[in-house]
Amino acid sequence: MRMVDIIEKKRDGIELTKEEIQFFVNGYTDGSIPDYQVSALTMAIFFKGMTENERADLTMAMVESGDQIDLKKIEGIKVDKHSTGGVGDTTTLVLGPLVAAVGVPVAKMSGRGLGHTGGTIDKLEAVEGFHVEIENEEFIKLVNENKIAVIGQSGNLTPADKKLYALRDVTATVDSIPLIASSIMSKKIAAGADAIVLDVKTGAGAFMKTLEDSKELASAMVRIGNNVGRNTMAVISDMSQPLGFAIGNALEVKEAIDTLKGEGPEDLTELCLTLGSHMVVLAKKAASAEEAREKLQQVINDGSALETFKTFLSSQGGDATVVDQPEKLPQAKYQFELEAKENGYVSEIVADEIGTAAMLLGAGRATKESTIDLAVGLMLRKKIGDEVKKGDSLVTIYSNFEDVSEVKEKLYTNIVLTSEKVNAPVLIHGEITN
Amino acid sequence: MRMVDIIEKKRDGIELTKEEIQFFVNGYTDGSIPDYQVSALTMAIFFKGMTENERADLTMAMVESGDQIDLKKIEGIKVDKHSTGGVGDTTTLVLGPLVAAVGVPVAKMSGRGLGHTGGTIDKLEAVEGFHVEIENEEFIKLVNENKIAVIGQSGNLTPADKKLYALRDVTATVDSIPLIASSIMSKKIAAGADAIVLDVKTGAGAFMKTLEDSKELASAMVRIGNNVGRNTMAVISDMSQPLGFAIGNALEVKEAIDTLKGEGPEDLTELCLTLGSHMVVLAKKAASAEEAREKLQQVINDGSALETFKTFLSSQGGDATVVDQPEKLPQAKYQFELEAKENGYVSEIVADEIGTAAMLLGAGRATKESTIDLAVGLMLRKKIGDEVKKGDSLVTIYSNFEDVSEVKEKLYTNIVLTSEKVNAPVLIHGEITN
Repeated sequence: MRMVDIIEKKRDGIELTKEEIQFFVNGYTDGSIPDYQVSALTMAIFFKGMTENERADLTMAMVESGDQIDLKKIEGIKVDKHSTGGVGDTTTLVLGPLVAAVGVPVAKMSGRGLGHTGGTIDKLEAVEGFHVEIENEEFIKLVNENKIAVIGQSGNLTPADKKLYALRDVTATVDSIPLIASSIMSKKIAAGADAIVLDVKTGAGAFMKTLEDSKELASAMVRIGNNVGRNTMAVISDMSQPLGFAIGNALEVKEAIDTLKGEGPEDLTELCLTLGSHMVVLAKKAASAEEAREKLQQVINDGSALETFKTFLSSQGGDATVVDQPEKLPQAKYQFELEAKENGYVSEIVADEIGTAAMLLGAGRATKESTIDLAVGLMLRKKIGDEVKKGDSLVTIYSNFEDVSEVKEKLYTNIVLTSEKVNAPVLIHGEITN
Repeated sequence: MRMVDIIEKKRDGIELTKEEIQFFVNGYTDGSIPDYQVSALTMAIFFKGMTENERADLTMAMVESGDQIDLKKIEGIKVDKHSTGGVGDTTTLVLGPLVAAVGVPVAKMSGRGLGHTGGTIDKLEAVEGFHVEIENEEFIKLVNENKIAVIGQSGNLTPADKKLYALRDVTATVDSIPLIASSIMSKKIAAGADAIVLDVKTGAGAFMKTLEDSKELASAMVRIGNNVGRNTMAVISDMSQPLGFAIGNALEVKEAIDTLKGEGPEDLTELCLTLGSHMVVLAKKAASAEEAREKLQQVINDGSALETFKTFLSSQGGDATVVDQPEKLPQAKYQFELEAKENGYVSEIVADEIGTAAMLLGAGRATKESTIDLAVGLMLRKKIGDEVKKGDSLVTIYSNFEDVSEVKEKLYTNIVLTSEKVNAPVLIHGEITN
């Protein structure tokens, strides 16, 4: 088999066989196939796409290129959730304890990563003492006991995907739905998921700006999952503005606690109930999404979701008293209000730019070497559609430095008021099961 | 400027600027831009093409990536000819002396190369003593005196093109008309041509199999040439069967001599008169193709074309008596006739395969290290459309070994006879001046 023939075949729109896909993925991983052939292939894929068979074969070849996490010792169906990413997305912190409380095993491997705010582990580290450096055996024991535990990333998962992504990043071949979909799915599968619920964001603050693209990506991932034997479904959710109110690490932990108490922001609560109910169904802990939703509502109402969160925190060394005394979370030195300059209605909150404003405060990492300030961030006081009077606070800024003029300027530019009434955006744009 | 942005621009169908093209050509030549970005770009070019401006800019950037031959000291307009390659193509050997005899300066830089038979230099070395190892000054003096000289390739011409071609070859991006056209044109321009006549072959034995593709390539090259200030035109000529009768080095020298005497094969003669008359016009030695053709016909008839060939050979150390005593050329030990097995008409002579048969005899180089047997080769005795009686010779095989069964088998398979009358193919399919 020769790589040049595989490139030519794809270039000419002919379907690649499973053997050809394994040949290039394995060859690329072990270094016998050079970057310059793989980048020509990915560019050909950008133009010619991939068939369903090719996508499934590529996903599994990447899964098999490295270690795979074995979660067999955990009882029940392991359902993982993946979000394509947005701003102020606190769903993971809420969903874990929420579905665990109705018996769904949550065995989460998580990372730090770059972005407007930290990753799930960074956020949880806002709780004093909490740590994810636990042994595999301990991790499995905790999930079996408490139905939820989080462990740091370890092992050599999907090295082919890592190498391929780094190459795509410098060869303008990131924006290819088959490649994005197989990249995401390979990571989830290698991490041991039996079933997967995808939260595909759409809108200005999302990777996929249009509903059409978001649906296409969702469908691509759902089909890969189902084609390789992992029950998979996707929810398309709105990211035309940040989700919830909090953007920042400790602020999001506090917001997650509020949401688990039933006192969270409406959009975050609704999205968690939607995603959660599908997780419960895929884990076969309810027969329908309606039944699952009732169960989730009940564990919020009776306090057992919050109780699960406490147990989870203390099991991994965390000070669970923060749940009842959130003032124990890291606090910023200064608070500033961003006052509305006029009366009107909020018509736009440019999520990306709001995220960047949070990053200016120190809430996120620009490079791997950056350190995160867990205390700082933003709390939105108004969302799209809200009426605003001159002088109302649009945002509370939590900062550890006094001069936030640059942050304020960015926020004013990216929170647009209008004189006409505006409708709040639709939160759930659809569900994709096929 | 970042290479990834240039790739993305091309991928999205946006025209690249001259500066962007120079940036990537220079960066690729000096090694600061890696192979994997360039291969992604060439694949994007494969799909998105290049505008006329981009093609001209790419050509000139490649010309400027290395040395350029300075032919200013040669009087007159230097017209070069380029053929896209075929089987049994003796035109260069004929055209040089032919147009030189009417005053067109022929300053030819030539190579050896791979193929069914040798390059122009290999063929000329069939004449005892002939050599191309001459100094630049001597070369220029010879062209000024005799209007013709040939020198071996030297200097670092179009290194960007060499690097790019090697990369395209292993990344399935050879078949791109803008890239083929700029590659060819950059080499001609770097070699010092003021004006260029292109012989674009079409048909089964050519790189471009269809007339449409050949016309597209011809037009692409003609426009590049004219856009960068080199008067350029193209003739589309038939390569559905080998040109002339001879395929082999000494055999082609003999055929060139015959043609310069006015006794050559009809198709080769006609093509040389056509290409030659355009060269004469571009060199401004005649006002029209008709006038040029008359001049060429005259130098054949009065023997001055042949005389020019003799002077050319002896000026570079060659034994010019071979022109009148062609038996002094290298002779093969054995001759075999390929006898027709039945009556009929020749309907097909698969040029590629006939070329491969000549290579089996040792007439060409498979790798750079191969040595060429100048004496061996094939003389076609029949061409498409000719009537054949059982037992007639179809081909004379000139070999230095006795067992030519493999060669015969290949020839029988690739010279097809039919019972119905067949027309000879059209030789000149068109001329492209724009």
